[in-house]
Amino acid sequence: MSILVVGSVALDSVETPFGTAERVLGGSGVFFSAAASLLAPVRMVGVVGDDYPLGDLNFLAERGVDLSGIEHADGESFFWAGRYSYDFNSRDTLETRLGVFADFKPRIPEAFKDSRLVFLGNIDPVLQMDVLDQVRSPEVVVCDTMNYWIEGSREALISLLGRVDVLMVNDSEARELADDHNLLRAARWIQERGPKIVVVKKGEHGAILFGPDSIFFVPGFPLEVVFDPTGAGDSFAGGFMGYLASVESPTGEDYRTAMVYGSAMGSFAVEKFSVDRFKNLEREEILERIRQFKEMTTFEHQLQGSNV
Amino acid sequence: MSILVVGSVALDSVETPFGTAERVLGGSGVFFSAAASLLAPVRMVGVVGDDYPLGDLNFLAERGVDLSGIEHADGESFFWAGRYSYDFNSRDTLETRLGVFADFKPRIPEAFKDSRLVFLGNIDPVLQMDVLDQVRSPEVVVCDTMNYWIEGSREALISLLGRVDVLMVNDSEARELADDHNLLRAARWIQERGPKIVVVKKGEHGAILFGPDSIFFVPGFPLEVVFDPTGAGDSFAGGFMGYLASVESPTGEDYRTAMVYGSAMGSFAVEKFSVDRFKNLEREEILERIRQFKEMTTFEHQLQGSNV
Repeated sequence: MSILVVGSVALDSVETPFGTAERVLGGSGVFFSAAASLLAPVRMVGVVGDDYPLGDLNFLAERGVDLSGIEHADGESFFWAGRYSYDFNSRDTLETRLGVFADFKPRIPEAFKDSRLVFLGNIDPVLQMDVLDQVRSPEVVVCDTMNYWIEGSREALISLLGRVDVLMVNDSEARELADDHNLLRAARWIQERGPKIVVVKKGEHGAILFGPDSIFFVPGFPLEVVFDPTGAGDSFAGGFMGYLASVESPTGEDYRTAMVYGSAMGSFAVEKFSVDRFKNLEREEILERIRQFKEMTTFEHQLQGSNV
Repeated sequence: MSILVVGSVALDSVETPFGTAERVLGGSGVFFSAAASLLAPVRMVGVVGDDYPLGDLNFLAERGVDLSGIEHADGESFFWAGRYSYDFNSRDTLETRLGVFADFKPRIPEAFKDSRLVFLGNIDPVLQMDVLDQVRSPEVVVCDTMNYWIEGSREALISLLGRVDVLMVNDSEARELADDHNLLRAARWIQERGPKIVVVKKGEHGAILFGPDSIFFVPGFPLEVVFDPTGAGDSFAGGFMGYLASVESPTGEDYRTAMVYGSAMGSFAVEKFSVDRFKNLEREEILERIRQFKEMTTFEHQLQGSNV
């Protein structure tokens, strides 16, 4: 099953304690597609300017990403420059130039309108709604957002929630959206507004899925070296939806496994700059990491304990 | 199997957004014993002053806690007063009076010297070492510490590590001890100095066990209401060791289950003031929470996925 992703197609300049990368592939649509395409076919919608190195996206096309929804506009591509602190606990944005992304109006190609799985990357909720209006009958809509929209476009966002199946945000975003510091209550608040499922990403602390009647927890994969955290969240989303797309009609059980694929892809993303880690990532490496997640979380429960 | 615990026996005055509690039972030894004694027999060593309401410890004696190692000294008991912020993200210490605890020199009663499981609560590492010198042949020594000792008694602490099986600290303590912001590397650094196992507690984000050749992760239990976080870490330790004491010779598998009992007991601790939640906690409630942890972390891994 193909996944439709609408998000940014950007160039990033990143400084980490380990080095710098200049004008490399970035943006939510790119990270998502790089991760998801290892598991399922992907259809991308986005916009680039005259300066985008389109050839660098060839590795995506070669593994089944349909790039025909990427619009070419006159002007500069979305550019972001950032610097991470030595312990990766903070990130300074050095520069953001929206370029052609400022006027981005997603147009879904006719051939993409039958998409059953839709990922709405972090853009204006009005545009996210517009995307849904163009897709005929989406079955699973997963939506990302950020504090900027929660504060500035609250009404549009809450109205959008009524058409979203899975809201996927980080913990501070969930708390701010629901205006509740307690994550469980915040998730329940969001669920009452539409999404059956709320996925809360917590970076190195893992992620939690709040479902209609169950909660599932996946840890962050412990790494000795975090090289560049950029794009981890979108790669998580890519792994999550890539797994969902690889099964016919996702069950609650599949959503749990999807969380583990999400965390796995997020952990691969941070091992190299940009989407570099996904370029030669082997099936066996993914499966091995999934096995490690299983090993990290499995325990025997002895109901027959002597005192308990 | 009995557990020997050496730690503080204190009185706490606590302010939370939900109310206040004045001069209630507190201290690492008390929280530890309240949790552990639900699973195994406990032997307490500590000191109290003239003002301690010893009758309030009766509920511990009634369920198999041997209080004969609690010394009575002239003066005031250890007193701590603190206030939590509305979102529990920060805690202000309003007052600390060490009282008789300032001159505490743990004396292990003859009848306790055959203890095979020892929990060294957060006290001066010189005293923790002194405790180990008095116990004949401990099999599992679990040790807590804090930034105060890491900074001020570094040499004594590192020397102690050589005789510790499990170091149990929170994430900031692990990072500071190893002087490494990366938790995995910090754990490896600590393991090289003695402890085969490092347990890192991360509050609401759960806890990680770094073993000789495996890692295990347990989430924090999601609660709609956190009433009073005081003592959650020591209650975690109590659940962890209580479970270990309930099996004959703990295996790697038992350590994993112990982590889940730790997280469960930590989650019960915060539901009421002081040790109140442990007073009437039923066996069936504990088992139900363990089942919920299982439910929150179990996933099926389909190796035969269509694309993977």
